[in-house]
Amino acid sequence: MSSVVTPSLVAALSGVLASDRVLTRAEDILPYGFDGTAALKATPGAVVFPLTSEEVAACVRLAREAGVPVVTRGSGTGLSGGSVPVTGGLVLCLAQMDRILEVDARNLTLQAQAGVITKDIDDAAGRVGLFYPPDPGSMKISTIGGNVAENSGGLRGLKYGVTRDYVMGLRVVLPDGTLTQLGNKCVKDVAGYSMKDLFIGSEGTLGIITEVMLKLVPKPAARRTLLALYDRMEDAAETITAIIGARIIPCTLEFLDRMTVGCVEDFAKIGLPTEVEAVVLMETDGYPAVVEEEAARMMELARQHGAREVRAAADDAEAAQLATARRSAFSALARRRPTTILEDVTVPRTELAHMVAFIREVAQRHRLMVGTFGHLGDGNLHPTFLTDERDTEEMHRVEQALEEIVDETIRLGGTVTGEHGVGLAKKAFLRRQLGESSYELMRTVKRALDPANLLNPGKIFDL
Amino acid sequence: MSSVVTPSLVAALSGVLASDRVLTRAEDILPYGFDGTAALKATPGAVVFPLTSEEVAACVRLAREAGVPVVTRGSGTGLSGGSVPVTGGLVLCLAQMDRILEVDARNLTLQAQAGVITKDIDDAAGRVGLFYPPDPGSMKISTIGGNVAENSGGLRGLKYGVTRDYVMGLRVVLPDGTLTQLGNKCVKDVAGYSMKDLFIGSEGTLGIITEVMLKLVPKPAARRTLLALYDRMEDAAETITAIIGARIIPCTLEFLDRMTVGCVEDFAKIGLPTEVEAVVLMETDGYPAVVEEEAARMMELARQHGAREVRAAADDAEAAQLATARRSAFSALARRRPTTILEDVTVPRTELAHMVAFIREVAQRHRLMVGTFGHLGDGNLHPTFLTDERDTEEMHRVEQALEEIVDETIRLGGTVTGEHGVGLAKKAFLRRQLGESSYELMRTVKRALDPANLLNPGKIFDL
Repeated sequence: MSSVVTPSLVAALSGVLASDRVLTRAEDILPYGFDGTAALKATPGAVVFPLTSEEVAACVRLAREAGVPVVTRGSGTGLSGGSVPVTGGLVLCLAQMDRILEVDARNLTLQAQAGVITKDIDDAAGRVGLFYPPDPGSMKISTIGGNVAENSGGLRGLKYGVTRDYVMGLRVVLPDGTLTQLGNKCVKDVAGYSMKDLFIGSEGTLGIITEVMLKLVPKPAARRTLLALYDRMEDAAETITAIIGARIIPCTLEFLDRMTVGCVEDFAKIGLPTEVEAVVLMETDGYPAVVEEEAARMMELARQHGAREVRAAADDAEAAQLATARRSAFSALARRRPTTILEDVTVPRTELAHMVAFIREVAQRHRLMVGTFGHLGDGNLHPTFLTDERDTEEMHRVEQALEEIVDETIRLGGTVTGEHGVGLAKKAFLRRQLGESSYELMRTVKRALDPANLLNPGKIFDL
Repeated sequence: MSSVVTPSLVAALSGVLASDRVLTRAEDILPYGFDGTAALKATPGAVVFPLTSEEVAACVRLAREAGVPVVTRGSGTGLSGGSVPVTGGLVLCLAQMDRILEVDARNLTLQAQAGVITKDIDDAAGRVGLFYPPDPGSMKISTIGGNVAENSGGLRGLKYGVTRDYVMGLRVVLPDGTLTQLGNKCVKDVAGYSMKDLFIGSEGTLGIITEVMLKLVPKPAARRTLLALYDRMEDAAETITAIIGARIIPCTLEFLDRMTVGCVEDFAKIGLPTEVEAVVLMETDGYPAVVEEEAARMMELARQHGAREVRAAADDAEAAQLATARRSAFSALARRRPTTILEDVTVPRTELAHMVAFIREVAQRHRLMVGTFGHLGDGNLHPTFLTDERDTEEMHRVEQALEEIVDETIRLGGTVTGEHGVGLAKKAFLRRQLGESSYELMRTVKRALDPANLLNPGKIFDL
C-alpha cells in the first residue's frame, strides 16, 4: 500500500466534498498529525472533512482504490496516539459531523453524528430530564465518535460503567466503503454476533463510526460531593474497600496523590492543603434521601479509616469546584515539565494500595517525577511522568520505570490500558498482557475485516 | 467434513475422559438430540461429559483431527435449537462442569465453570450479601455457560440489563483446540478488541465457553411486588410509558395476556381473575424508602391509566406467588396443545401496544391460538403459538402468521430475537433483519475464526 496522496486522489476527493473541505498544504495539515499523546507526531498526505456518512463512505472508497491508508480523528484528544497518521495517508476528520439527529425521550435514546462533542450529548439529554453518564476527562472537547472508538471511561465509571454500556447502535463505514448499521433501538437483541461490541473500542482499525445511537438514563434527582484528605495512601485505599464493603456504589471515587495535589493547587488555587498524601473526591447521586444517607455513611467511613479531614460541598458551585480539582489534574501536571507521559494501568480493585505504593517506589528508585491520580473505585491509575523528551538519559529511566510498572500490572492480573486505548502507546505491551492465543485472535479479526489493512494501519498491533 | 463419529474417535475420546463419560448407545444419546425448542431434533454421533477446560480442549482437538463437528450444550433449555446437533457429530455436554471456583466479595466477582446452574450462582452471591441479577425464566435449570453463549435476558432486564452486562471474563476453547482467556478482573479494560463481547451470544459457533468470571452487585435491601389488572392492553402499555416517563426504572415490568392468564390460572391456581385483558407484574428494588415511594407512585400511575385493580404483595411469600404467575407462563401455555412455538420478537418500547394488537389480529385472522406474554419494559414479547405439528394445514397457517409478525417487527425497527438466540429457529429471518452488509460481516467473522466450520455448524447462518 502506498501512503502517498496523489493529485488525482485529491481531485477525486474534491469532487466528492466541497474543495474547502480537502486540505493538503503543509501548514493546514500540520495540526492533524498529532493528538494528546506526548512525543508522537506524523504528517498526513491530506485531511478531509466529510459532513455525512455517505461522504465518509465515498472518501473511503476513493482511498481504497488509490491504496492509501485512512486514519479517522475527532477532536484529537486521544492519549494513546490512535489518530496519529504514522503511515501518512488520508486523515478523515469527523469534527464537522456535529449534528444531534434525534432525542427520543420515550425510548430513552439519542442519535448523533460522530463529531458531536460529548458534553453536548449530555446537555441535550439534560434538557429532557435525562442523562448521558460517561464523562471522560476530555468531555468538553472530545467527540462522541472518538469516545466510542476508544470505549472511553470517565469519572462516573464505578456506578455507571463506560461508553460501551451506553451504545445501542452504530452506523459504520467498512473498509470496502460499504455503509452498514449495527444494533438498533431495542434494549434487547441477540440476532447474531454483537458486531457493535466488536467495533466499540476498535480504535478506527475495523471501520469508521459515523453515527451513534446512545442509551440515556433518568437524571439523578440529587448529588452530593465530598472531599477527603489523607496522610497515608493506604488509608485512602482502605476507605474505598470499606465503602464498597458497606454495599455502597458511589458514582465517583477519584484520587490525587501529593504531587498531583501540589500541581493542581498551583494551577487552580482551590485551597487544597498541599501537604497531604492523598485527596479523594467522592460523589454519590440518586434519590435525595438515599444520597444524604450514603454521603453521611461515606464521611463516617472516611473518618474511621484515617481521613484527617472530610469536606462536603455546600452547594453545586462548591461541588463543581471540588470536581475541578480532579478534572484539572492532567493539565496541572502537564505544566511542570516539557513532556508529560500519562499512563493508564488498571488493576483489580483490591490491588490498588499496593500498586500506588509500587509506582511511588519505582519513581523514587529511577529518580523520576511522577504524579499519580485516577479512578480509585475502578482500579484505574494514571501515573503521570513529568519529564523531557530531549533528555535521552532521563527518557531511558522513564522507559525502565514504565516497563517495571507494566510488568507488575500484568503480574497482578491487570491491564496496561483501562480507558485510553492501545493505539501506538501501548502496542509493545499488548501481546505480553493478552498472551499468544488471545492476541492472535484479535489479529485474525483485523485481517478478516480489513484484509488490505486500509484503516488506521499500525495501530494496536502490526499485522 | 464428515459427521460420523468413528470407533477410533470414540476410543480416543475414552482415552482422554473416563469411558463412562463417553456415550454412544442410541438410548443413551437420545436425550442430547433436542432442546426446549418445538419440532427440532437430531441424533448426535456421541456425547461426552468433560470436567475441565483442558478436557474440553482435548475433545475439540480430537474432533478436529477427525473432521467431526462439535455441538456444545448445557442443560438443553435453549429455545432456538442452538444445541440441536443437526449435522450429527460430537455433543459436548458441559453439565458436569458445575463447580463455583471463587467468590471474591472484595472485587465483586465470581468465577464458575460453564455447567453451573444459574440460580446456584445467585445463591452463592447471596450468601455474601451480593446479587447476580440476570434471571432467565429457566434459571433454576439452565447453565451459566448456556446463558453466556445465548446472552440470555430475564425478568429484571429493564433495570439490570442482560447476561452480557455481567460477564467480565471467559475461558474459551477455540476451534483449533487452544484454550484462551478473554477479559480479566479489572472493571475497565480497553487493551485491544473486546473479544469477550464477540463470544458472548455467539451460540457456540466461535468457541466453547468453559469458565466465566461474572460481576456481582450489592444485594438490594428491599423489594416490592405489585400486580395490576387491565381490561384493555393499551392501558397496560400506557402505564409502562407513564412509569418510565416519571423517571422510574423498575427492575421488572412483565405482562401476560388474557389467554396466558387463563392457562396460568388453570395450571397454578393463584387466584387471578381470568376475564382481564392484561396482567402486569411490576417489581421495584433498592433502598427501602425509595422502594416504598416508587411502589406507591407505580400503583397510582397504574390506576390513573385504567387498571381495574392493583394488588401489592404483603410479604415475600405473596411476592413469590405473584412472580410465579409470570414464571409459569410458558409451562402453563405448553400444556394446552401438543406443540408450543414460542416467539421472541422485540420492538422499541414505544411500539409495544401496537405490536401486541397486531399479534392478536394476526392470530384471529389465521384462526390460531396465541398467548402473548413478555417483558413489557424491554419491548420483548413472547407470542406463543399453541398448535399441533402433525396438522400440516394448521402449521401452514402458523408459518404465515409468523412471517407477518416478523415483517411487522422488522418494519418497526425491531429484532426477531430479543433473548432466545438465532440457532435454527430464526435463521431464515436474520438476513432480512440485518441487511446484507451486516449479515455478511458476521459470516466473515465466523469464517475467519472457524475456517473449518467445526463448531456448531448450520447455526445462526449457513456459510
